[in-house]
Amino acid sequence: MQHLKHCQGLASVFLIRSQSSRISKSIIPSLSVWDGHLSSRWRSTGGHGRQKYFSDRVPKFRFALAGLLVGTGAVLAYRLHQGKVEWAASSAQLPVTQTSALPVYTLEEVTKHCSLDNGVWVTYKGEVYDITAFVAMHPGGDKILLAAGGSLEPYWALYAVHEQDHVFEILSEYKIGVLNTESIKKQESVNTLDPYSAEPTRHPALRINSLKPFNAEPPSSILSDNYITPSVIFFKRNHLPVPRVDPETYRLEIEGLPGGVVSLTLNELKSCFPKYTITATLQCAGNRRSEMNTVKQVKGLNWGIAAISNATWSGALLRDVLLHYGFGPEVAAKAQHVQFEGLDKDVTGTAYGASIPLNKAVSEDGDVLLAYEMNGEDLPPDHGYPVRVVVPGIVGARNVKWLGKIVVSEEESKSHWQQNDYKGFSPGTDWDTVDFKSAPAIQELPIQSAITHPAEGTSVDASDGEVTVKGYAWSGGGREVVRVDVSIDGGKTWHVAKLRTGDKGQQAPPPPPGKAWAWKLWEIDVPLPHRAQELEIVCKAVDSSYNMQPDTVAPIWNLRGVLSNAWHRVKVKVNEDL
Amino acid sequence: MQHLKHCQGLASVFLIRSQSSRISKSIIPSLSVWDGHLSSRWRSTGGHGRQKYFSDRVPKFRFALAGLLVGTGAVLAYRLHQGKVEWAASSAQLPVTQTSALPVYTLEEVTKHCSLDNGVWVTYKGEVYDITAFVAMHPGGDKILLAAGGSLEPYWALYAVHEQDHVFEILSEYKIGVLNTESIKKQESVNTLDPYSAEPTRHPALRINSLKPFNAEPPSSILSDNYITPSVIFFKRNHLPVPRVDPETYRLEIEGLPGGVVSLTLNELKSCFPKYTITATLQCAGNRRSEMNTVKQVKGLNWGIAAISNATWSGALLRDVLLHYGFGPEVAAKAQHVQFEGLDKDVTGTAYGASIPLNKAVSEDGDVLLAYEMNGEDLPPDHGYPVRVVVPGIVGARNVKWLGKIVVSEEESKSHWQQNDYKGFSPGTDWDTVDFKSAPAIQELPIQSAITHPAEGTSVDASDGEVTVKGYAWSGGGREVVRVDVSIDGGKTWHVAKLRTGDKGQQAPPPPPGKAWAWKLWEIDVPLPHRAQELEIVCKAVDSSYNMQPDTVAPIWNLRGVLSNAWHRVKVKVNEDL
Repeated sequence: MQHLKHCQGLASVFLIRSQSSRISKSIIPSLSVWDGHLSSRWRSTGGHGRQKYFSDRVPKFRFALAGLLVGTGAVLAYRLHQGKVEWAASSAQLPVTQTSALPVYTLEEVTKHCSLDNGVWVTYKGEVYDITAFVAMHPGGDKILLAAGGSLEPYWALYAVHEQDHVFEILSEYKIGVLNTESIKKQESVNTLDPYSAEPTRHPALRINSLKPFNAEPPSSILSDNYITPSVIFFKRNHLPVPRVDPETYRLEIEGLPGGVVSLTLNELKSCFPKYTITATLQCAGNRRSEMNTVKQVKGLNWGIAAISNATWSGALLRDVLLHYGFGPEVAAKAQHVQFEGLDKDVTGTAYGASIPLNKAVSEDGDVLLAYEMNGEDLPPDHGYPVRVVVPGIVGARNVKWLGKIVVSEEESKSHWQQNDYKGFSPGTDWDTVDFKSAPAIQELPIQSAITHPAEGTSVDASDGEVTVKGYAWSGGGREVVRVDVSIDGGKTWHVAKLRTGDKGQQAPPPPPGKAWAWKLWEIDVPLPHRAQELEIVCKAVDSSYNMQPDTVAPIWNLRGVLSNAWHRVKVKVNEDL
Repeated sequence: MQHLKHCQGLASVFLIRSQSSRISKSIIPSLSVWDGHLSSRWRSTGGHGRQKYFSDRVPKFRFALAGLLVGTGAVLAYRLHQGKVEWAASSAQLPVTQTSALPVYTLEEVTKHCSLDNGVWVTYKGEVYDITAFVAMHPGGDKILLAAGGSLEPYWALYAVHEQDHVFEILSEYKIGVLNTESIKKQESVNTLDPYSAEPTRHPALRINSLKPFNAEPPSSILSDNYITPSVIFFKRNHLPVPRVDPETYRLEIEGLPGGVVSLTLNELKSCFPKYTITATLQCAGNRRSEMNTVKQVKGLNWGIAAISNATWSGALLRDVLLHYGFGPEVAAKAQHVQFEGLDKDVTGTAYGASIPLNKAVSEDGDVLLAYEMNGEDLPPDHGYPVRVVVPGIVGARNVKWLGKIVVSEEESKSHWQQNDYKGFSPGTDWDTVDFKSAPAIQELPIQSAITHPAEGTSVDASDGEVTVKGYAWSGGGREVVRVDVSIDGGKTWHVAKLRTGDKGQQAPPPPPGKAWAWKLWEIDVPLPHRAQELEIVCKAVDSSYNMQPDTVAPIWNLRGVLSNAWHRVKVKVNEDL
């Protein structure tokens, strides 16, 4: 495992790779000397700013990150700071206020310090820290800048490794003030004035595509850090305001079965049916839509590559519930679809709706859940609390959240989203010629993969002799990803990546055929060609049906920008070793 | 329906389109005048020969063909010859021997007359005909040349429309002699000297890729003429000599079930289990391998685009048989595969073998057949008489013929063809680096389509203003083909083809989700761009999981040349209107 290798060798890797390539590698400098070099280098970057900093440094820090996120490595990494003694020496150069009379800042003042140019300030429990000088030393690399100008808490909740005494000690060295009371309240407040007034608080790392309704994806740089995506950064795809549902009064209605309408309480759903857990990846039909926009403008949210995430889901099997309430051959002889209706409604009272084929709903192999837990906890409000449908292998849009009603029917859902949206068309079809009836509603999704590291426009270090490429791959319909090919020359030659089905070498046993609901993460070190100046990194995945991704975007372009699964391409520069 | 249009308009379409583009279209000439024109033109073609003839004429004759093959149109077409009176007038110019003292020919002499340059001779019931002058008038177009130098019977058996009195009357006009007795015997004889001595007689239209073992595909020009491929031209893919099995002594053994080994007679298989019929397309993993060879040489038979065919299959459901003999949860808890062993064996006694996942074999939706009929008749010897497995949606290689044994097992088949063949690899994997254990055995096949008309290197007529493009599309795993996109500019712009699921407008009802076992045929008339001189015609299909074909061959190239499903491309010239 590539991953394990990084972890075991982390101490030396971190020290060596974290250095600027412009610093001689013949001597491993003490931390204070090193700090000095880095500080002076930042000052000299002048107007280059954050972008320049990222493009120079990102690849190196990522090496350390791989180790960080697997736990043991992270502790080792933080211990490299060698306690307070050495810190005290280096901190003499830092703008730390060491008196008890600390300045009071407003949130607005903190927010301005969100870059290396303006200084990197963060808050933690009402206190303000200037961590500008620490950024280069952060074992997690540049990801620390996601919190710049805001609060650390949501990130530390995500990466619990930070919740340790020696990390608090390091942080304390950078304290420069406290927040005023109003700012503290503001950090926790939500707007109470519009239909979106009850929206839950979201993780600040999310890249927001639309605020109302809320649609957001995690930064692609952190997407593949966890095999199970933490719920807080799991992509959010809401079509309407998030309904706040009282679990006591919640009822799930079921229609279309012989005994008439069924009305289930949350407690009945939880207690009357076996609890079943699956790990399943959900993907928005519009994932990677932004690449289609580069061909020709499409309609839809401009998703990057991260409108896809992976979680464990627990709940009752839809099959069990339908069978319990009378589903049998008599119903099957007529019905062909199972419709779902959400409790999220627009101003006219129209609810979100979708349907799936009956055989998916009732098949023993379908694994369709009426889920009430995500990653071992109650569903978060953004993910359908108290109950949602999880239809593994099927486009996100049919995984109806805040589930209010199930209808076993001869017909598909009549909702806009089933009939006049989420369908694929030929590149030659435009809004003047489109006939939504001519295409089937998207259900299973095609084979997909993307590169999460390195990022577009960054640089890799020629002295490393190789480039580490990472990403995810997934396919719909329970088809297992069996191979990911990676090219660094735009697709002329190909290398086979290593796949994993868990964190830190926790490979899951292979799923039964047709039940590979979860993605695979992949990684590969590709040797750099001699004197390469630029790389076009490309990935393409293959699933168990040996379907592969199409080469280019234009021939799969469609007016709604869905099903964007061409080879993912990332261009990076190669920094020559001096 | 495009098809219907052709059929209804056949009389005029045939007359007009069958003319040479160099003949004025302002007058519809009488048949005799028309014959005179064509005859003189043939004589003037001099050394151009058959290839030239084909490239000039093929597209026009194909228009008539569409009508011919749907029955009614064919009768109409033949009646255009207007009986014997007009024939007598035109036949004065033809080399017809009208005396009773006919010359006697050998088969060798007939065989030499296999082109328009050397004359087109055919035999029928021991008599010899020179049909050179008739070729241009043949309502079925140039396909008549498939029989040139040989016997008509196998083709007329394929296109039963010929078995009519007025067709025999037309033919009689061209009689020039009789075959000698030895030749008649030779036509029916088979070589009796080697392990392949008992091979069945094959249809002469087949394009042979390997004689021993026999591997052949139909000419792509006739592949999409029938929605149900006639058994005689259904592609043949044998790994070993065809075993001749006595139905009386035939036994099917079943192992791995609680009651011990089962031994079933053919009669028991037919009488003890319900007979179930499906229409299913089978495709060889190596279909379209020849396109991979143009990138870099691969190992394997050089299949064109026709190692795929569609038939109806009848037999017992494997699921029914396994359940009857004790398959249940106890077996399912351990077993994961169902192995098949053929009665075809190599010199060491090793039988052909393969396996499929257990869930495919026993699922209600799997539709796996122990088939004893193909297209309503006993299986032909080349297709597994008396019993074969038909695993719809799965690569041909697992559809074991001459089935001798079924084993329910924890393991895959250990056969060479399961373990060290029929697997897909990265383009970067060569014979020095390949590890067959690293890839899964091919089961479901990916989305596929190809162009059957027009043929590569032929010409289309600019005066038509459009080009008719036809082909097939199919996907594995029961995924329905939902769209075929066609381009005539190499993939820059796309048009949506019309799909059909039967002959002559006999559209089948849509299959249940996940049970689309049969291909779709498609057709489209694409307007010709002004002053186009060459077209690069391209097709790509989309299935119900919205998987699409990859753009190019090189990135899916693999050392065995399997899974060749890139866009199919055909280049044709445009003949300017004079």
